[in-house]
Amino acid sequence: MSSEAGAESANLSGGRAPERILLRRVAIIGLGLMGGSLALALRRAGVAAQIVGCGRQVLIDRAREMGALDSGSTDACEVVAGSDCVVLCTPVETSIALMKQIAPHLAPGAVITDVGSTKQSFAAAACELFGAEAAQRVLPGHPLAGRELSGLEHATADLYDGCVWVLTPLGQCAKTEGNATDQPELTAAQRALRLALEAIGARVVLTSAAEHDRVLAYTSHLPQMLSTALALTLAENFAAADPALEIHGGGLRTMLRLAGSEPKMWEQIAASNHENIAQALEHMEAALRQLRESLGAPEFRAKFEQAREFAKFLKG
Amino acid sequence: MSSEAGAESANLSGGRAPERILLRRVAIIGLGLMGGSLALALRRAGVAAQIVGCGRQVLIDRAREMGALDSGSTDACEVVAGSDCVVLCTPVETSIALMKQIAPHLAPGAVITDVGSTKQSFAAAACELFGAEAAQRVLPGHPLAGRELSGLEHATADLYDGCVWVLTPLGQCAKTEGNATDQPELTAAQRALRLALEAIGARVVLTSAAEHDRVLAYTSHLPQMLSTALALTLAENFAAADPALEIHGGGLRTMLRLAGSEPKMWEQIAASNHENIAQALEHMEAALRQLRESLGAPEFRAKFEQAREFAKFLKG
Repeated sequence: MSSEAGAESANLSGGRAPERILLRRVAIIGLGLMGGSLALALRRAGVAAQIVGCGRQVLIDRAREMGALDSGSTDACEVVAGSDCVVLCTPVETSIALMKQIAPHLAPGAVITDVGSTKQSFAAAACELFGAEAAQRVLPGHPLAGRELSGLEHATADLYDGCVWVLTPLGQCAKTEGNATDQPELTAAQRALRLALEAIGARVVLTSAAEHDRVLAYTSHLPQMLSTALALTLAENFAAADPALEIHGGGLRTMLRLAGSEPKMWEQIAASNHENIAQALEHMEAALRQLRESLGAPEFRAKFEQAREFAKFLKG
Repeated sequence: MSSEAGAESANLSGGRAPERILLRRVAIIGLGLMGGSLALALRRAGVAAQIVGCGRQVLIDRAREMGALDSGSTDACEVVAGSDCVVLCTPVETSIALMKQIAPHLAPGAVITDVGSTKQSFAAAACELFGAEAAQRVLPGHPLAGRELSGLEHATADLYDGCVWVLTPLGQCAKTEGNATDQPELTAAQRALRLALEAIGARVVLTSAAEHDRVLAYTSHLPQMLSTALALTLAENFAAADPALEIHGGGLRTMLRLAGSEPKMWEQIAASNHENIAQALEHMEAALRQLRESLGAPEFRAKFEQAREFAKFLKG
């Protein structure tokens, strides 16, 4: 009877078989949606012997109540000392500042990773900080998990289920433009990190920081800018309380969903991936102009069909 | 026992009390998603004594099997004769052609309506066709119901549940720019149509054809053009099979959803609401350019917050 009950509770916790311990002690710095969810997911997967956290005291207390953390400290250096894996779960610029602060306290062989939405500025900071050792000490990362909500109160153990988690090995620091296949072997701690991410349900993809930022400008930052600019266009033409705005297709809400995202996070993304985003926006402005010029002309239909095929292919 | 069973089946069919008959005979011309769903919804609501349909024979047969129609004909004039309400459920240009064709067969006091996505060209055609009698004979309409799927096979009785159904009374035909409050009283057949739409769960909103088309350019046509132009921008920068496209946030699929819409329908919308859509696109292009120019500057944050407030307000 008791073994049956055990099997059932394993199913409830995600249907995973018990995992071996991959990380002796993980330090999660930043206890918001990303950090809190990572702690809960690592706990659920049972791959970390100890999970420690750093954030404001109220968040540490709440995370401990949620069962996400074994212990915590408001001092980042304190949680880093003795950890084999350090995950910076803060916006890009904050993570860069924290990396500099914790570097002297990092245990030998330990790895620092992050969850920032852009990778080149973090990668460049790591190279500057660690020099020839950067590729061993730092393995930048970016989980592509939903983020309209923020804060520890929205953290869930399944946030990363099935998501793509990009890792961008640094390679030779002089050459961050290089292809991921040129990258050196991962260290033991980096391999353990990768396995732990797969154990929590993520699909790990390796690429370079430069390629990551170029691709994301189109596949994530551009969609966000569109939704925000659509809201601005509507705000320019209608008062928010205008009853005319009740007359809309379901598509309007769909297209405005992303506009509700956190401005602070996007301010940092916009600043750290400025050039790629500007280029994607220029292409988009041209596409809109061409579509406008084709209204009522035969090429409108052809454009519409091309777009439909592409969208269908991506969906499939 | 049998009365209890009856009550239960009434609940299953939408929880509505039995309705009185509002329409003696409704002719639905065009048996796709919109027409098929309307027939099923009228049947469910029990407000039409007889529902007849016009379309290709295979669709008539299928609609009869679905219980949507009492009878049908491939000849539009045949279903119109003897009907007190005629609903044109085809794209705008087709509906205009059909209206001309059926006009001589319309019963005295009967009303023609449509479900077209733009209203000014249909309204103008009605005025030209019926002259001084246009406002009595034709009451253009537009249900704002989801439409990425098309075809009778996707028709459901609940498509219009809770949707806004815009009606644009013609008023004096010389003055289609006028406000809906200037419009003359609805005829008996038009009032019956309005009540029947409310009985199937739609929320009827009255406005002018010009205001409808201006508003929809921003709240429906612009979101569609954005999604299509986003797909075109991606297609220009990536092959559809490029593995890089696996690296995206959930936002990409959200923003590409509308790009899967029916090109034929949108070709007609683009042609019939050309000027309003072009203006909305110009505003959008300017908003994107301004957002691009603010990347990394202080006003970026302010723009982002303004957009977020507006989107939040609309959602609430």
